[in-house]
Amino acid sequence: MYKTSKVVFSPRVRKSPYFNSTIKYGAQAYSVYNHMYMPISYEGTIQDYKNLLNSVQLWDVGVERQIQIKGPDAEALSQFLTPRNIKKCAIGQAMYTPLLDFEGGFLNDPVMLRLDENHYWFSVSDGDSLLWAQGIAAGYKFDVEIDEPDVSPLQVQGPDSTKLMSKVFGDWVNDLGFYKFKQVTHQGIPMVIARMGYSRELCYELFLQDGSKGNDLWELLWEAGQEFKISAGGPNIILRLEGGILSYLADIDRSNNPYEVGLDWLVDLEQEDDFIGKEALRLVCQNGPTKKLMGAEIHGDPIEDSNADHWPVFINGKKVGSMNAMVYSPRLDKNICYTILDIEHAKSGQEIVIAAPEKDLMATTIDLPWRERA
Amino acid sequence: MYKTSKVVFSPRVRKSPYFNSTIKYGAQAYSVYNHMYMPISYEGTIQDYKNLLNSVQLWDVGVERQIQIKGPDAEALSQFLTPRNIKKCAIGQAMYTPLLDFEGGFLNDPVMLRLDENHYWFSVSDGDSLLWAQGIAAGYKFDVEIDEPDVSPLQVQGPDSTKLMSKVFGDWVNDLGFYKFKQVTHQGIPMVIARMGYSRELCYELFLQDGSKGNDLWELLWEAGQEFKISAGGPNIILRLEGGILSYLADIDRSNNPYEVGLDWLVDLEQEDDFIGKEALRLVCQNGPTKKLMGAEIHGDPIEDSNADHWPVFINGKKVGSMNAMVYSPRLDKNICYTILDIEHAKSGQEIVIAAPEKDLMATTIDLPWRERA
Repeated sequence: MYKTSKVVFSPRVRKSPYFNSTIKYGAQAYSVYNHMYMPISYEGTIQDYKNLLNSVQLWDVGVERQIQIKGPDAEALSQFLTPRNIKKCAIGQAMYTPLLDFEGGFLNDPVMLRLDENHYWFSVSDGDSLLWAQGIAAGYKFDVEIDEPDVSPLQVQGPDSTKLMSKVFGDWVNDLGFYKFKQVTHQGIPMVIARMGYSRELCYELFLQDGSKGNDLWELLWEAGQEFKISAGGPNIILRLEGGILSYLADIDRSNNPYEVGLDWLVDLEQEDDFIGKEALRLVCQNGPTKKLMGAEIHGDPIEDSNADHWPVFINGKKVGSMNAMVYSPRLDKNICYTILDIEHAKSGQEIVIAAPEKDLMATTIDLPWRERA
Repeated sequence: MYKTSKVVFSPRVRKSPYFNSTIKYGAQAYSVYNHMYMPISYEGTIQDYKNLLNSVQLWDVGVERQIQIKGPDAEALSQFLTPRNIKKCAIGQAMYTPLLDFEGGFLNDPVMLRLDENHYWFSVSDGDSLLWAQGIAAGYKFDVEIDEPDVSPLQVQGPDSTKLMSKVFGDWVNDLGFYKFKQVTHQGIPMVIARMGYSRELCYELFLQDGSKGNDLWELLWEAGQEFKISAGGPNIILRLEGGILSYLADIDRSNNPYEVGLDWLVDLEQEDDFIGKEALRLVCQNGPTKKLMGAEIHGDPIEDSNADHWPVFINGKKVGSMNAMVYSPRLDKNICYTILDIEHAKSGQEIVIAAPEKDLMATTIDLPWRERA
């Protein structure tokens, strides 16, 4: 599926609290994310995907580090850091809250959890947003404390995840709303349990608050999950692309703004408060974006390897964008991919040519996503 | 040498301009550093080390990204970011310039190149210091432009490196002073050539300024290096430990300040200008550090595997610090390591016990480094 080499395990890169479990249960390939090893594949991308869709699966996503913002100005700083109107976020609720630079480009795309009146976590994708938040806070004199707490998420993914979660943690899980969370301590393990995760399937995220207990948490879920034929997996490119979910730095980066990637609904230009990038985004909103993220379906036989680079996209011999991620989806029985195209070509049904290193691939654009939330 | 698994090549992690050359010339293992694949080993850590010491070696260190600071306040911001007195840095000169947080802890340990009056590069180790610099600049209203330019270093390492460099680039290389650099264009390839690198051996760093020409640069050096039996390698843990060179996040991190790791000579508290961490470091300077980086020699047979974690260090059953990096040095014929010890035990000749997972290791502390610059 992916091209690979060897990766060395050195103390320069951190291990998640679940690392020993990922080795024990057969992780075969890793990436590095937020200075930490992230298991990507156990039985292979396709088999991991099938295992998840058949039952329930554990994902070590301890690489999602939390930026904790506390103190009198915690709400004010959090609002300044994101274009979303976070004043609408209740305590016990989470929100998808991009962090942008002053030009409106993505610095990160965390999920924010509001734990209390002036207490937030930003669960960040790959990037030291901690340094950004601390630099901004210092210079703009926000009265806050910012750190990276001992919090490491584990995701429970798949159609049987509610059954497993309620079996282990109690019936209240059945009533937990989407993007809502609850603080619990179970068998001495403190954690925040949220109903969300990095797929469109039924899923939960357990924000473990004691790194010494990662393997204990894994084992108790594993044991309880035996009746469901629980498996181990990791963030899965097939589920991601089917669901139109973004992977920061793979699909989008700092050169993109929310209007280009279907996330304009996160931008609240009407709110009174200022936020970083507001001025730049007002212009983008007025003039419209110059490029746009689109799905596309690649013709021909199932593709075996995912791309290791972005590939240029052409129409009539003219470069019009790039193809950033592709994979074969078994349940769609289609080769699906993400492209970012010049705005005049960013419409459904457009024939495009993707210049792969070996040969050109023919594809037809389509609106995202292929699958809605389960 | 290192424990390993597989790493996936995905577009989420960048490839350096030399990536194809590293594959072509046999890189066997990678790490990820600044969101980019970094080749670590070709023929194995020990053989790579021997190859380097016998001749000349190319290292793809494109992962050292540059933070470029330009504009009217470039000197002022650069000074604010580091405790070193950069006013003493001439144009065409480089300096080792840690970036600290407000508590004096290491955020990074870049080498700074002063390209012009108000034009600096910070060649950073692993971490998005770009976000830190930009956050600080915005909040404190420095009038600067900060970006990551298309600059990717390649190092030429080893006793024959001067011969190779002068053969390719001209006799002026023989006169290039330590930590001095020169802008050149060779066969249409623009670069800054500096006499420095990540070892205590003779070495040079070529800051390629056109990412499309990385493999061209590699090939022309490779061809010219045939008479010296040129080889390929990567940042080498044996050379690092022998020379007392630090690897940020492996050996030291944000919990350490310069006084703890032998870098107090970089801190200029007497300068008039303020810098981030000055207040905190003044206290450390007055009271002395509470812990200290020390070398140690581990008794017994040559150790085969490097540590993948930091291991606790004990004296008389009491935990007194940690062992952060260890390796067998063939030319010293010793097992050498870095420890960070509570200050009262941080003296040469101290017997310590390193609690490795399998068994305790006995060691004796010693002052760093084992080897001075060649």
